[in-house]
Amino acid sequence: MRAFPAALERLTEQFARLPGIGSKTAQRLAFHVLSLPQDEAEAFAAAILDAKRTVHTCGVCQNLTDREICGICDDPQRDHGLICVVAEPRDVVAMERSREYQGVYHVLHGVISPLNHVGPDDLKLKELLQRVGEGNVREVIMATNPDTEGEATAMYVSRLLKPLEVKVTRLAYGIPVGSQLEYADEVTLLRALEGRREI
Amino acid sequence: MRAFPAALERLTEQFARLPGIGSKTAQRLAFHVLSLPQDEAEAFAAAILDAKRTVHTCGVCQNLTDREICGICDDPQRDHGLICVVAEPRDVVAMERSREYQGVYHVLHGVISPLNHVGPDDLKLKELLQRVGEGNVREVIMATNPDTEGEATAMYVSRLLKPLEVKVTRLAYGIPVGSQLEYADEVTLLRALEGRREI
Repeated sequence: MRAFPAALERLTEQFARLPGIGSKTAQRLAFHVLSLPQDEAEAFAAAILDAKRTVHTCGVCQNLTDREICGICDDPQRDHGLICVVAEPRDVVAMERSREYQGVYHVLHGVISPLNHVGPDDLKLKELLQRVGEGNVREVIMATNPDTEGEATAMYVSRLLKPLEVKVTRLAYGIPVGSQLEYADEVTLLRALEGRREI
Repeated sequence: MRAFPAALERLTEQFARLPGIGSKTAQRLAFHVLSLPQDEAEAFAAAILDAKRTVHTCGVCQNLTDREICGICDDPQRDHGLICVVAEPRDVVAMERSREYQGVYHVLHGVISPLNHVGPDDLKLKELLQRVGEGNVREVIMATNPDTEGEATAMYVSRLLKPLEVKVTRLAYGIPVGSQLEYADEVTLLRALEGRREI
């Protein structure tokens, strides 16, 4: 006989598909959702659909936004001649926490990773080349993670940008090598910004 | 400025409310949901609502079911004079895995736990007393976890049942003391069933 009602099994399967959630944890989460008041369960389901419906990428920097152009790209106070290239939207949050950076961003949505079958065509590189190609960009700061894939991606992008005669810099190794950008503290990120070098 | 679009923040908050999910994990899960195809995100939201709508407790044994009376209580082949009392629905699944038990169940939905403010009134005890009081029950097997709270609950329930002149037994200590019933293997559960003793 079936262990649990079908709808409960289906909910458990949905949780088990999430990254890092095993089958026992998925079962615990499904039971938890069942124990929620009706309005809280509805709020959870609505949050999933709302996020999918309203969140998309900024037409300029490719960061996540619920507007056509994100708040940073739309801000005339920011320095639009300075682009900081990051791998993921959460890295923008980490950079903004330093409260020092006044330029804009470009989110690649990944790094080149042959092992994970992610090649240059899977990243938002075409959009970056177009932005730089328009000629108003003075400097591009490569702020991918200081690990193997992040370094390789930084090198690849810098080579792509060289013909466009833009200054390309890399965050200084204030960031501990091998770590993740999103866990860096504000001071470390500040040092890394100040010590950036041309590549 | 706000780090992420509001809908993304709300989804992250929803994940962060789940037991055992911290804020970093919640953020990773929210990003994952955003990266899902539209139909998969919709399936996830629908699974939450479906489970809430269709899953409720069996009118007899209080186990989770999508019918009025669950498949076990509704099965004339089962021994309805023998009730196995467990703390949680997942414990029914563990017992059924032994493929030996032919009686029915009663799910308490918790154990007495003063530290967590769970008292006897928070468990499905009234329903158990009513079932036993109807007079067709020969034996009640207490199969709460063999830990402090499970033992205390078993003792409490056995005292409640004594006036009703029903045989009350406890699973034998084939189950390793201090462990969780849901992780017990089939053979251990079988031994525990065979060696049950009166309390």
